[in-house]
Amino acid sequence: MCVPVKILCLTSVILLACATSNNILATEAHNEGINKEQDGHDVDTTPNIVLIFVDDLGYGDLSFSGHPNSRTPNIDSLAANGRFFTNFYVSSPVCSPSRASLLTGRHQVRSGVYPGVFTPDNTLGLPHNETTIAKLLSEKGYNTMIIGKWHLGVGESREYLPTHFGFHHYLGIPYSHDMCPCRRCFPDDGPCYDMCWSQDVSCPLFSNTTIIEQPADLTKLTEKYVNQALSFMHNATAHNAPFFLYLPFHQIHHPQFASSKFYETSLRGHVGDALNELDWAIGEIVGTLQQLNLLSSTLIWFSSDNGPSLTRHERGGCAGLLRCGKGTTWEGGVHVPTFVHWPDKIQPGRTSALASSLDVLPTIAKLNNIDISNLTLDGFDISSLLWDSRAESPRKYFAIYPESPLQSLGPYAVRDGRYKAHFYTEGSDLSDPDNYDPMCPASHGLTRHNPPLLFDLQVDPGERYDLGKDPDHKEIIDALKRWREEHMSNMTWMPPLTKIVNETSQPCCTEPSCSPFPSCCDCQYNRHLNNIFYHVLH
Amino acid sequence: MCVPVKILCLTSVILLACATSNNILATEAHNEGINKEQDGHDVDTTPNIVLIFVDDLGYGDLSFSGHPNSRTPNIDSLAANGRFFTNFYVSSPVCSPSRASLLTGRHQVRSGVYPGVFTPDNTLGLPHNETTIAKLLSEKGYNTMIIGKWHLGVGESREYLPTHFGFHHYLGIPYSHDMCPCRRCFPDDGPCYDMCWSQDVSCPLFSNTTIIEQPADLTKLTEKYVNQALSFMHNATAHNAPFFLYLPFHQIHHPQFASSKFYETSLRGHVGDALNELDWAIGEIVGTLQQLNLLSSTLIWFSSDNGPSLTRHERGGCAGLLRCGKGTTWEGGVHVPTFVHWPDKIQPGRTSALASSLDVLPTIAKLNNIDISNLTLDGFDISSLLWDSRAESPRKYFAIYPESPLQSLGPYAVRDGRYKAHFYTEGSDLSDPDNYDPMCPASHGLTRHNPPLLFDLQVDPGERYDLGKDPDHKEIIDALKRWREEHMSNMTWMPPLTKIVNETSQPCCTEPSCSPFPSCCDCQYNRHLNNIFYHVLH
Repeated sequence: MCVPVKILCLTSVILLACATSNNILATEAHNEGINKEQDGHDVDTTPNIVLIFVDDLGYGDLSFSGHPNSRTPNIDSLAANGRFFTNFYVSSPVCSPSRASLLTGRHQVRSGVYPGVFTPDNTLGLPHNETTIAKLLSEKGYNTMIIGKWHLGVGESREYLPTHFGFHHYLGIPYSHDMCPCRRCFPDDGPCYDMCWSQDVSCPLFSNTTIIEQPADLTKLTEKYVNQALSFMHNATAHNAPFFLYLPFHQIHHPQFASSKFYETSLRGHVGDALNELDWAIGEIVGTLQQLNLLSSTLIWFSSDNGPSLTRHERGGCAGLLRCGKGTTWEGGVHVPTFVHWPDKIQPGRTSALASSLDVLPTIAKLNNIDISNLTLDGFDISSLLWDSRAESPRKYFAIYPESPLQSLGPYAVRDGRYKAHFYTEGSDLSDPDNYDPMCPASHGLTRHNPPLLFDLQVDPGERYDLGKDPDHKEIIDALKRWREEHMSNMTWMPPLTKIVNETSQPCCTEPSCSPFPSCCDCQYNRHLNNIFYHVLH
Repeated sequence: MCVPVKILCLTSVILLACATSNNILATEAHNEGINKEQDGHDVDTTPNIVLIFVDDLGYGDLSFSGHPNSRTPNIDSLAANGRFFTNFYVSSPVCSPSRASLLTGRHQVRSGVYPGVFTPDNTLGLPHNETTIAKLLSEKGYNTMIIGKWHLGVGESREYLPTHFGFHHYLGIPYSHDMCPCRRCFPDDGPCYDMCWSQDVSCPLFSNTTIIEQPADLTKLTEKYVNQALSFMHNATAHNAPFFLYLPFHQIHHPQFASSKFYETSLRGHVGDALNELDWAIGEIVGTLQQLNLLSSTLIWFSSDNGPSLTRHERGGCAGLLRCGKGTTWEGGVHVPTFVHWPDKIQPGRTSALASSLDVLPTIAKLNNIDISNLTLDGFDISSLLWDSRAESPRKYFAIYPESPLQSLGPYAVRDGRYKAHFYTEGSDLSDPDNYDPMCPASHGLTRHNPPLLFDLQVDPGERYDLGKDPDHKEIIDALKRWREEHMSNMTWMPPLTKIVNETSQPCCTEPSCSPFPSCCDCQYNRHLNNIFYHVLH
């Protein structure tokens, strides 16, 4: 006889022994939603959903996607056994806008999440009237949690944290972990590499809206995240609720960090260590799903928020054969490795069909029979691509906005199922001032192209051979131009939100008006650590 | 009751029905060689060996190695279930010398197979005193065959064709299929793309030393090769002999070609069609091994002769994240996708250990208990890397020679287990005059680097971040320098063989002195086609 799960959950290891029997009920509850006919497919209308969003992971970073010295066996295995999207795009080459679009199914310019990204001193965040995947699923009865990097605002009263957007629970540093004086990245207490924001408050680790560590210890962060993820999955299952677990990992954004278990374990150096820890974390989550017999009722969607930060050189990610990286509208900035894993439902295979992070919300809504007709969306239901690797994409075009979009310029590039036209290009510091490709560094300033540069991405995914001046491709260019103009005339722009700041709005473990600021914001390690599990249970 | 296999072999389909029962004997014969203890491993000392050497296949060309629009399921499956070598090098960035080194385990400068490659009018070829893998294995009782591109000479009396080097049988075009007026590459009779050598004789298809088609029909070539490979495997098995099948495919060298079954089947265009046909061919061979119950007693070694021909733009291959391509000593020229598949013997996995095509002969010799102590070799037995993905490589250094080596300059680059030092660099027309990387095109002339350029290939496999001037790396550079000097002082150079030509030595179906030359050399299609099988049986 088990004692109540609520008590057992204090450690995930103890919980495991009981959750397995409790899981029988959860599985039965799930079965009620199975076997509804949808597009000719038997679909579980309440699958658990694990949405993994890695930070700055490039198309060429996984061993699955061709890096000679990466070892990502857990991710590779999921990718090989799921539907791998070889032409999947995020809506922005930088973090906050990409996350806004993922969670809302809307271009970032609609929600005002631009230019660039939110900073710790921002007073605003994702507007409260935006509807997130978490909100839709929580209304459907899902238990919802985010563990990791939110990066859609904190707010002076913490009113922009995820629990205000449909997430029941939150554990994480709410922005990039270089936006603080990153003191400890490795177990040897050696310095973090790359620049950190030494003038800002230490990285806060939030449980819901409470800071439980400041500075957050990066060397123990991933283990905490994993333990919390396992507890959450056990607990949701024990309560007979399907769950939505959003995992925006901090890896492999700079500065790289790793726990003692993964420090100096990779041929690729620190970025490889970080990848190893990420891969382990994903392996732990999949292992728990297997133990709970939930793998076949869980859809895992894996992607990255943007391309690699090439300016970090050997400590940054890798775009593989794609051109440039983070911060640019070239393929290296926005074309990311993506797959969906759902055993028994999705046959292993690859699709080259055009798809985007904007399509995640509509697809999940479709799978869950959730009515989204009241929302103004830029995404498409691409579930047909999950069932059939040869299906045509419902998405015919994709608009690629730059890091800092302007309404007068619109999207810099547009791609259709085959071609991509660059109407503007602009290099970025994030794509390496030393890059020998003249298009990538910030020294390549904003440049208008008329006719646009045109690349046939099917035969030239590396965007090397411009067809823009070829008269045989004039009709293709004209069609892309027309679609872009129509897109621009239909787009609604919210004023930009990311530049409204107030230094004292930075998250602070004590009083935001304390002194000396910002060091006075540090709180003792682990002061409220036990509270994590309390929050999860309610 | 079966009629004799010799007759049945006229078609591989008919043969199949009998070979299965005959195979019982063959399998028993094989079993005699099993269970000899070797390095703690039970090793079959007479495995069948299939050595696949693709032409101009880049590190980023397979779907397994990250190309978004390639689909190579058969190759991927072998790679995923074998030992994938993520740091495997060929000895030359061009064809003939790379093939000489593969088959002899010796740098091309020892055999004189330089500068560049053999042409149809060459009077010489690989020296007859060179010992090939085929010679070693035929002496061990193997039935040996090469199907495909030999490219180590023909000779005025055809004395440099493969049957003079330990191969019992040969079917193939003996050099690159652009070295002739390539008239038909696709079933629609449209033109071949890229330059062909219109002033030379049509491509000859040899059966042993007899031309059986001139011009060879590229649209039917791969199917002929596959049928011949299947017949050979059936036949060798029926005769209770282990076999060595060397498959130097013409794919994916320019001009691309495909049969009607694969024409316009790929998103990647013509190079994708060629890859699809290659993948099909390999699938047929593996399928037959499975049908014959020979897969677990067959070692399949897959590699490429050099990097991609970037000058072919979207019709060439792809180096993935590696720098430059064919013709250069940068990674894109000599670092190729390679794996060894041997079920039950080799556990699936990847090794990052340094290895090379020079190591194939010593490794096969070791597996077969063949004494090679009388040979002067540059290769190492790397069988330990097959059994253990974490084993250290016996190879500590690798010398990278350019397309046209000179004794006074020696190898342009040297790599150890981690670093690569470029003492000289030189661009190549084959790496694209339009390449935006200034190091790749021929416009980057021969340049000496002192100190050498130094790259840490573990963290920087794309050779982007030069460490050559960093004082912390002086000892590493000194060690690479010392090894290079020792290597140069120990190397024996044969005079170069590839520039000695005589126009009338070109292979000609009729009389070499015929007129008008070269068109008079054409013979009727398929005149001797049935002879193929005769040759195989003897």
